[in-house]
Amino acid sequence: MFPKNAWYVACTPDEIDDKPLGRMICGERIVFYRAQEGAAAAVEDFCPHRGAPLSLGRVVEGKLVCGYHGLEMGCDGKTIAMPGQRVRGFPCIRSFPVIERYGYIWVWPGDAAQADPAKLPHLAWAESPDWAFGGGRYHIHCDYRLMIDNLMDLTHEKYVHATSIGQKELDEALPTTKVDGDTVITSRYMENVMPPPFWQAALRGNHLADDVPCDRWQICRYTAPGQILIDVGVAHAGKGGFDADPAFKASGIVVDFITPETETTMWYFWGLARNFQPRDKALTASIREAQGKVFAEDLEMLESQQRNLLTWPERKLLSLNTDAGGVQARRMLDKMIEQERDAAAEASA
Amino acid sequence: MFPKNAWYVACTPDEIDDKPLGRMICGERIVFYRAQEGAAAAVEDFCPHRGAPLSLGRVVEGKLVCGYHGLEMGCDGKTIAMPGQRVRGFPCIRSFPVIERYGYIWVWPGDAAQADPAKLPHLAWAESPDWAFGGGRYHIHCDYRLMIDNLMDLTHEKYVHATSIGQKELDEALPTTKVDGDTVITSRYMENVMPPPFWQAALRGNHLADDVPCDRWQICRYTAPGQILIDVGVAHAGKGGFDADPAFKASGIVVDFITPETETTMWYFWGLARNFQPRDKALTASIREAQGKVFAEDLEMLESQQRNLLTWPERKLLSLNTDAGGVQARRMLDKMIEQERDAAAEASA
Amino acid sequence: MFPKNAWYVACTPDEIDDKPLGRMICGERIVFYRAQEGAAAAVEDFCPHRGAPLSLGRVVEGKLVCGYHGLEMGCDGKTIAMPGQRVRGFPCIRSFPVIERYGYIWVWPGDAAQADPAKLPHLAWAESPDWAFGGGRYHIHCDYRLMIDNLMDLTHEKYVHATSIGQKELDEALPTTKVDGDTVITSRYMENVMPPPFWQAALRGNHLADDVPCDRWQICRYTAPGQILIDVGVAHAGKGGFDADPAFKASGIVVDFITPETETTMWYFWGLARNFQPRDKALTASIREAQGKVFAEDLEMLESQQRNLLTWPERKLLSLNTDAGGVQARRMLDKMIEQERDAAAEASA
Repeated sequence: MFPKNAWYVACTPDEIDDKPLGRMICGERIVFYRAQEGAAAAVEDFCPHRGAPLSLGRVVEGKLVCGYHGLEMGCDGKTIAMPGQRVRGFPCIRSFPVIERYGYIWVWPGDAAQADPAKLPHLAWAESPDWAFGGGRYHIHCDYRLMIDNLMDLTHEKYVHATSIGQKELDEALPTTKVDGDTVITSRYMENVMPPPFWQAALRGNHLADDVPCDRWQICRYTAPGQILIDVGVAHAGKGGFDADPAFKASGIVVDFITPETETTMWYFWGLARNFQPRDKALTASIREAQGKVFAEDLEMLESQQRNLLTWPERKLLSLNTDAGGVQARRMLDKMIEQERDAAAEASA
Repeated sequence: MFPKNAWYVACTPDEIDDKPLGRMICGERIVFYRAQEGAAAAVEDFCPHRGAPLSLGRVVEGKLVCGYHGLEMGCDGKTIAMPGQRVRGFPCIRSFPVIERYGYIWVWPGDAAQADPAKLPHLAWAESPDWAFGGGRYHIHCDYRLMIDNLMDLTHEKYVHATSIGQKELDEALPTTKVDGDTVITSRYMENVMPPPFWQAALRGNHLADDVPCDRWQICRYTAPGQILIDVGVAHAGKGGFDADPAFKASGIVVDFITPETETTMWYFWGLARNFQPRDKALTASIREAQGKVFAEDLEMLESQQRNLLTWPERKLLSLNTDAGGVQARRMLDKMIEQERDAAAEASA
Repeated sequence: MFPKNAWYVACTPDEIDDKPLGRMICGERIVFYRAQEGAAAAVEDFCPHRGAPLSLGRVVEGKLVCGYHGLEMGCDGKTIAMPGQRVRGFPCIRSFPVIERYGYIWVWPGDAAQADPAKLPHLAWAESPDWAFGGGRYHIHCDYRLMIDNLMDLTHEKYVHATSIGQKELDEALPTTKVDGDTVITSRYMENVMPPPFWQAALRGNHLADDVPCDRWQICRYTAPGQILIDVGVAHAGKGGFDADPAFKASGIVVDFITPETETTMWYFWGLARNFQPRDKALTASIREAQGKVFAEDLEMLESQQRNLLTWPERKLLSLNTDAGGVQARRMLDKMIEQERDAAAEASA
């Protein structure tokens, strides 16, 4: 169950630079490629001639050429040409609205008529020279909503990520959740705590002492359907915490784009945007590597949680105060899904 | 189709010494672990909070702590505590009766109220210093009853285990089967035959001549639902066979515990208990290795037999005189299953 | 959907020389082996005793002996003997008509009463010393009809096999298709073109210049249900093309036997028969290796095309002029399948 009338991260630009990319998004088999003048494009991964996946073809002068018999597909889903054939009567395939921005290719897997570029959230950090970003991608065998739950309740860091970003005080500092327009915000503040290893390294990366008490914060901002940006950081204790002068803190934004592949599988685009030492590429690389290891720890948990939920489909899960973020997020999702369903019912009535 | 109100071998003690073990037994996802004072315990492998498998957690002071958000589970299936939460209203999960005895952890996957420790069979060899034991575990993709058939008709040794325990006389000495209370006994005696390689090695292990004619015996004792103990051995010919003085024979008990995982997969706990040279650990190791190789030969046969039965579900198999052991065993199983069904129907009426 | 009353290639003789071979053909699990005097035989891969696959057994004096308990099966599906048993009342299993000819074992998976050896097509090249043959086998996860489509429209060589047998002129020379009795013939002629790498090597193998313009031809002959023989070759330009004197050309027959395993998987027996330098074994080996690489290129395309068709089962594919060969082939197949269905309905009425 996922909304389809929304922008989802489909891939990163480098994934389509050399050849077309076949990827399923929200149950749709889609081929992403660079059309005229390098513009990102997306159509169904299905050649109208014999059903071959267009993603096995190649791009020639901005046209997607089927690798089986040479049909040339346009980015609007209309066949442009095919050797020895008149193609005017060929059936169209679906094309999908795409936008390349902020270091990602975004796709709108639902009704193209509703695809409004203005609905794409603004990501200031992605366009500013004062910020650096490093990230990666995981394919996970779980309902995308389990990942949303995961990221909206960071209590799990203490258990799943005990050796990197977890610390015992996570349990003690209860988070608060509020809904602000179309954003769910779950915040946790820990004062005067020793930073865990990941944050010690970040402090060192910003040339700050790493063995002193700090204030730590996690402000998770969920925007439906698949975006979670988390303000994270540590500041030397007593310097103002989240609001401390940059000279006393290491902070950034954990970037999470969560894209359903099927009902029980998903793509996870993760990363960290930071606004300290943005030109230090070695630091970007080392943070990326460390974060990749941390986030890989979630995979086994999420996939076996999914397996359990399929084994016991009728069981109700608990929604505790710590789960408030996930609960609110699912409420927004349910509303979007319901609206799409109603609109579809109305259209077919 | 398997009875659930019975003791089944779930695992060996070493499997839960360091961390919890998730294992499916008779269709139930169960986590086994060491609770207070090291006592074996078993509950559903499902955290009542968000459905994560508890087997990914760890044991802290005898409490099973969920590896996702720290819920502490008791061995009775009741949540003990969770950081920052009142847990009194949390739903319980099932707990399963367990017994640690004879070198195994036993579980009762059915109705806990009926779990009577007295129903656990007594295994004298497992508690005697005059006996040594070595064994292992296989996971097999077949209905557990195919393994019972296999072990209750050792004619197959001639074909499946031709180079180790098979010999041509197996076909000539027809087995006899009788039912003695709740035990099915299938016996075969071969007189004045040359011992096959496995038994030659056992004779040498007991410092006996291995190149002389012997009497050989196989007395398979099935106890429902999943236990088969086979008296096996060879004695120098004419010394009394099964009853020969220990000075003239090498003998032991093939130990087989057969535990359904699902309808078409199973766990196989195998081993050999022997009462000669019990302190010779090198001999234990070499017998264990040899037996492991022999029993691995059954896997391909059983798994492809299972595949065939799924392909031709409607075909009746033959029940020959050699199959009498398996036939009687299945009769006992059918009775147990029927009784459970009747009791369940009565309870819900 | 495949006809079953037909001869299909099941395996090559070497596959059953040493031991029985279990292989599914048209949905039937069959064991192939060498019975009395080495004659190829085929029965259901199911021992009537306990359902074990007979293919795990061995052949003793022409009898197929089950590897589980020693039942001896005859090539007519009747049990011959079993140690210690009277077998007269044992149920029979199906036996399948087989013929060993032309370097293949052929099987008739349908109604044995209709299996007429005269229906086996005559393959003159397979019995002539003037011809050499090399080939191989692939298992492919696709409906066998996708392979027929593939081979009846060689336009795909330009795209799928761009570096070996593809060339740009393939698109320009449109093929023609005609039906001649029970054969579909699709022909393409290219005049005065440079030979692609595979054919350059073949020209050199026949001690001919490989860097001169050539005439090239492809004459695909489909015979239902699973045979495609393709006259292929190149001749130095202007020497008569297909009819050129052997001194000026390199030519042969691409041999394709296509055997359904299930509705969506198949066995592919491929090869090249050639009538130049037939005694040059190194040439046979090198052509075989090159052809194996070329044909392997089709696998990913066919398997992902199949996956696409399963994703979009309701979509109609296009049948262009280039697809005429496949269209006619499917018409023949549909007719055979319909006839079998009608006959079955009549028989059961």
